[in-house]
Amino acid sequence: MSDILSQLGDILESRKNTAEGESSYVASLHAKGLNKILEKIGEEAVETIIAAKDAQTSGDNSDVIYETADLWFHTLVALSNLGERPEAVIDELARRFNMSGLTEKANRNS
Amino acid sequence: MSDILSQLGDILESRKNTAEGESSYVASLHAKGLNKILEKIGEEAVETIIAAKDAQTSGDNSDVIYETADLWFHTLVALSNLGERPEAVIDELARRFNMSGLTEKANRNS
Amino acid sequence: MSDILSQLGDILESRKNTAEGESSYVASLHAKGLNKILEKIGEEAVETIIAAKDAQTSGDNSDVIYETADLWFHTLVALSNLGERPEAVIDELARRFNMSGLTEKANRNS
Amino acid sequence: MSDILSQLGDILESRKNTAEGESSYVASLHAKGLNKILEKIGEEAVETIIAAKDAQTSGDNSDVIYETADLWFHTLVALSNLGERPEAVIDELARRFNMSGLTEKANRNS
Repeated sequence: MSDILSQLGDILESRKNTAEGESSYVASLHAKGLNKILEKIGEEAVETIIAAKDAQTSGDNSDVIYETADLWFHTLVALSNLGERPEAVIDELARRFNMSGLTEKANRNS
Repeated sequence: MSDILSQLGDILESRKNTAEGESSYVASLHAKGLNKILEKIGEEAVETIIAAKDAQTSGDNSDVIYETADLWFHTLVALSNLGERPEAVIDELARRFNMSGLTEKANRNS
Repeated sequence: MSDILSQLGDILESRKNTAEGESSYVASLHAKGLNKILEKIGEEAVETIIAAKDAQTSGDNSDVIYETADLWFHTLVALSNLGERPEAVIDELARRFNMSGLTEKANRNS
Repeated sequence: MSDILSQLGDILESRKNTAEGESSYVASLHAKGLNKILEKIGEEAVETIIAAKDAQTSGDNSDVIYETADLWFHTLVALSNLGERPEAVIDELARRFNMSGLTEKANRNS
């Protein structure tokens, strides 16, 4: 799993400044600027909340998983816009739960 | 990094049904129910957005990383409440970016 | 001002079930359903928050007023979808601040 | 109804700078600053969305009306923090729906 978020970080970095902005959703978000990216975070948070309420009644979790992935993705684009990588979030989560050595381990794994 | 999210999934699972609800923040969230967890997702999304706006002016990203970790954490509690694990989100992200074999790889790594 | 919100309530009601759904934004929202209307509330709340942060730096409040109007408007569409009118919100605000007699007064005014 | 929002504007203004900050919720919000007020807008927007989803299943609209009033109230506190009054929102709504003369009319009414 680690590799996935690290790879995604690499992909986000590589798409940040593509000349062909129109061909990449990520590049188009950066071109529109931070406000637009943050609006997307708000949208996806609300879609996650609505999907969870619907899952509660329907018993089908596929939408809430999909929307959560959308939400995480857009937070990673915002962090990339500010010059940060996914590892920063994972490090912070690890710190809270006393799961030590992750950046080091991630570096070794990648 | 993978290990961190998998470990966090295990921690969330173990704290879901502790008898001593008052001693665990996660257990207290589950006791309050899905609505309260979803409200926290909304709160943390907004705090992430505000922290990103402040980072844009201050150049200091520490708050936005902290709030993003809070946001991810509460989405994982919501998914846990609905019976899902962090791997589901990572799988969905991997699927979108054609990063195949992650669940298998994660299983092997863990 | 009262008249404005009452009139808006009438407009929202009249546009709720127009046959020509495509010609009315309100009708198109109802056609898409409550989830879509609620997503708009989330979007507009976030746009209000971002506009307020920008106003804080720029000193220009025009966007935050515009976005707040958008937010109120979409909450009124949601309430209309659930069978409620703007007066219900005003009554609740009046109740909290001990400003009595408003529904009666509103009825007399309209 | 107009009178209610105008009166509320007056109340918000009078409570903005009370010396006894601890005795007024509005003063305590201003003391905490714009970020805290905006976080409340996010919270109340999400509580409105959740209440609407619950109303959809339960048929009981009382919570969604209550939460919408909370949401409007906190947007008015944010606008007050930025130096604006409720009339600005009503004027913007009137402008969109070609309901002219409202500020004038509101002034005459008040």
